[in-house]
Amino acid sequence: MKSPEEIVALMLENDAFSQWLGINIIAIDKGRCEIKCTVHEHMLNGFNILHGGISYSLSDSALAFASNSYGNKCMSIETSISHLRKVALNDTLHVICEEISRRKTIGIYTVSIKKADGSEISRFKGTVHISTEIW
Amino acid sequence: MKSPEEIVALMLENDAFSQWLGINIIAIDKGRCEIKCTVHEHMLNGFNILHGGISYSLSDSALAFASNSYGNKCMSIETSISHLRKVALNDTLHVICEEISRRKTIGIYTVSIKKADGSEISRFKGTVHISTEIW
Amino acid sequence: MKSPEEIVALMLENDAFSQWLGINIIAIDKGRCEIKCTVHEHMLNGFNILHGGISYSLSDSALAFASNSYGNKCMSIETSISHLRKVALNDTLHVICEEISRRKTIGIYTVSIKKADGSEISRFKGTVHISTEIW
Amino acid sequence: MKSPEEIVALMLENDAFSQWLGINIIAIDKGRCEIKCTVHEHMLNGFNILHGGISYSLSDSALAFASNSYGNKCMSIETSISHLRKVALNDTLHVICEEISRRKTIGIYTVSIKKADGSEISRFKGTVHISTEIW
Repeated sequence: MKSPEEIVALMLENDAFSQWLGINIIAIDKGRCEIKCTVHEHMLNGFNILHGGISYSLSDSALAFASNSYGNKCMSIETSISHLRKVALNDTLHVICEEISRRKTIGIYTVSIKKADGSEISRFKGTVHISTEIW
Repeated sequence: MKSPEEIVALMLENDAFSQWLGINIIAIDKGRCEIKCTVHEHMLNGFNILHGGISYSLSDSALAFASNSYGNKCMSIETSISHLRKVALNDTLHVICEEISRRKTIGIYTVSIKKADGSEISRFKGTVHISTEIW
Repeated sequence: MKSPEEIVALMLENDAFSQWLGINIIAIDKGRCEIKCTVHEHMLNGFNILHGGISYSLSDSALAFASNSYGNKCMSIETSISHLRKVALNDTLHVICEEISRRKTIGIYTVSIKKADGSEISRFKGTVHISTEIW
Repeated sequence: MKSPEEIVALMLENDAFSQWLGINIIAIDKGRCEIKCTVHEHMLNGFNILHGGISYSLSDSALAFASNSYGNKCMSIETSISHLRKVALNDTLHVICEEISRRKTIGIYTVSIKKADGSEISRFKGTVHISTEIW
């Protein structure tokens, strides 16, 4: 079976949107993932702050990497995100995904995103379905 | 006070990420919004299907347009999305945001995204904070 | 295989908490359920209004009845509820659960609770895991 | 202004449903609360395990105590709960509510419930509206 690093490299290689986001994988292990990313101009919304869809997308990508790294293919079913603070152009974001629970077919994960000053900008919770298909 | 159309034109004009998404506003009214969008290559994930972050971003943009169209600036606080079906390259998405409830400072909305064949691909629920600041 | 009515009668017969809630099943079908219930004194919180846990419990019971009525045992995994309006002593609540999506192992449902005047007091979304065990 | 202990005593004194639940407050501070509770027969569902509505109600009560303890009255707006493990009759539950974020009008909290063996049975996230009304 492939290692967490091999699986995530394979996922990222074909993940056009995560590439567009400029995701850098800092750490990956079974059920855990850390990502870094910098806020670019095309990520801003009509208030000139980071679009909530970007924080969500980073969280959802981190969820995908952390949950798939065991070797079974996992799909996000239900997710929620609380937006806590505004984020500005050029801010560096640190995304950490941790496992709350993993049973036979269901995994539950939390993702926290922080700015360089350590302040939390969003808190995400995601439920995945664990399939029997192997990477 | 500006009309819903004027507010949304103003929001979209400055919303770099919604422009990147290729959002077309089909209908806008106080508390309600319809959007169309086509799935491009850079919106796909490592499974070669639409990244969940795109469905979320379309829903969150629709939420922003529908909730801000009354004239007061609104910010998304807490949102959730259920991913129901896979979406492929070149699929056309129809995004409909409707109001569940609007009180003095809190508004709650639901967003459904459907494919051209009418099948629902995601269901979103969003809570916004209504500020006293006027567009 | 048992009918939706037989399954729900069996569930309710052994469901001490739903009995305590005073749940009346108005309608039941595969993936759909309607319940009625009256607000009693022991359901109020420290603000002298209905405790949010009661609206949630009614919604979660409705979810259980609607999702189990196909014949396979289903368990609630992830649920959310928006509290929209205050509810007072002796109010009659009408709980309606409808199916958003049902695949092989995952079902997604929405539950709306309304007062006798038709005003909505809560909106719930629930995800269940569909097991292979039969009622 | 009243202390966290005084506010929570006042809330609990009038909270018929939290009394019915048999809630014991173990610790209370601004934005933080710990509760203990034992699973009784009338809390079970049709599967003869703890009804998800009880885990939710304990979490929602903990949210109310933690968020109101600053002195301003707070109301739960939007909440979600993941059910992680089955709970049996006579299990002792330890409920811990912690603050994620508190701004002028919006507070966000997480609640974890654990059994005596330390295993987590549910994870809750709640958003409250902070009013200007004082306890």
